[in-house]
Amino acid sequence: MNRPGPVFDVHFRAELAQLMRWRRDVRRFRADPAPEELIDHLLDLAQLAPSVGNSQPWRLIRVESAEKRAAIRDNFLACNAEALAEQQGERAALYAQLKLAGLDKAPLQLAVFCDRATTQGFGLGTRTMPEMLDYSVVGMINMLWLAARAAGLGLGWISILDPEKVRLALEAPESFKLIGFLCLGWPEEEHVEPELARCGWQDRTVLGRRVLVV
Amino acid sequence: MNRPGPVFDVHFRAELAQLMRWRRDVRRFRADPAPEELIDHLLDLAQLAPSVGNSQPWRLIRVESAEKRAAIRDNFLACNAEALAEQQGERAALYAQLKLAGLDKAPLQLAVFCDRATTQGFGLGTRTMPEMLDYSVVGMINMLWLAARAAGLGLGWISILDPEKVRLALEAPESFKLIGFLCLGWPEEEHVEPELARCGWQDRTVLGRRVLVV
Repeated sequence: MNRPGPVFDVHFRAELAQLMRWRRDVRRFRADPAPEELIDHLLDLAQLAPSVGNSQPWRLIRVESAEKRAAIRDNFLACNAEALAEQQGERAALYAQLKLAGLDKAPLQLAVFCDRATTQGFGLGTRTMPEMLDYSVVGMINMLWLAARAAGLGLGWISILDPEKVRLALEAPESFKLIGFLCLGWPEEEHVEPELARCGWQDRTVLGRRVLVV
Repeated sequence: MNRPGPVFDVHFRAELAQLMRWRRDVRRFRADPAPEELIDHLLDLAQLAPSVGNSQPWRLIRVESAEKRAAIRDNFLACNAEALAEQQGERAALYAQLKLAGLDKAPLQLAVFCDRATTQGFGLGTRTMPEMLDYSVVGMINMLWLAARAAGLGLGWISILDPEKVRLALEAPESFKLIGFLCLGWPEEEHVEPELARCGWQDRTVLGRRVLVV
């Protein structure tokens, strides 16, 4: 049934812009966890994300045990050491100072996979671009990110990991492709500037040169 | 400088949930274009998306000429005919009835690429997962989608395309990887249910079985 959708007024739109501006990739968490009902609510909202063919290919593994958490942390430490070794001169010194994961303290840790073998959606829209399944999972993470920030929670997306080793450590099926490893919790601090900009790694640049017209 | 961020109250959060619920992949557009100032504003907001290492690897090509638009439409028609040919029985009949692109009428058409050769971000976070650059572009599209819907505009993401042929038709550099082809405009109708659910292709399913704990 076609019914008129809600109208989002200028006040809401200004606040939405604020939310997008203040969303941050958070690495520094307080130790106290978020309420479980809130986490459930956020995961429900995240699943309103667009997915190709309505395939909803996201699969989540919540990492709670000390043993599995240690495996992820070791994976990160090894990958991060290799990445540091490839940096040169001043960049290496700067890299060494960055805090690139919150795995030490984040109360909630989620491995987010794409099930590349799902039949939900009957393959619609994935024939020429099978990576659309992965992109659908990224959408779910983006919705979670905004909903979490709106609730005062911080989210950190860690990619300095060997994805296949994460899958094996968590005993996920072969068809599961790691899209992101997420830390979620109350942030220690809030900033409007990205940490990488504040630390002098990489500033934002402007849009202009990114749009061509043909 | 650490300053306390904005607090998003229950009213805003309820409206944000409404926005996520009413965001739709739109295929049916009115012919009248959105104001250019609004488009610019939405593209500015979209660029607040998270990007790995602050790399902002999104590159946009706005397709205006009749010749380029025809090339994209032909690409879609060929890929869609091939996809239809692979469907069986009732699914084929159903597939043939779906409207899977809005390329006939959408006033604004954007090819969104990832520049895989960008040096912005100095490679941070992409060593073991180079696909993080692509995912950053997906994030930009997700922010655009929500901001557009909040302004009353509809967005449709088309993936039934040969991505390499799109790149060649638009004369984009080799390092540009097509992430999505977007149609943007005022929607003819608004629905809270995804079109694929309304048409009987694929319903949403529930979260439960998607979360495991280890």
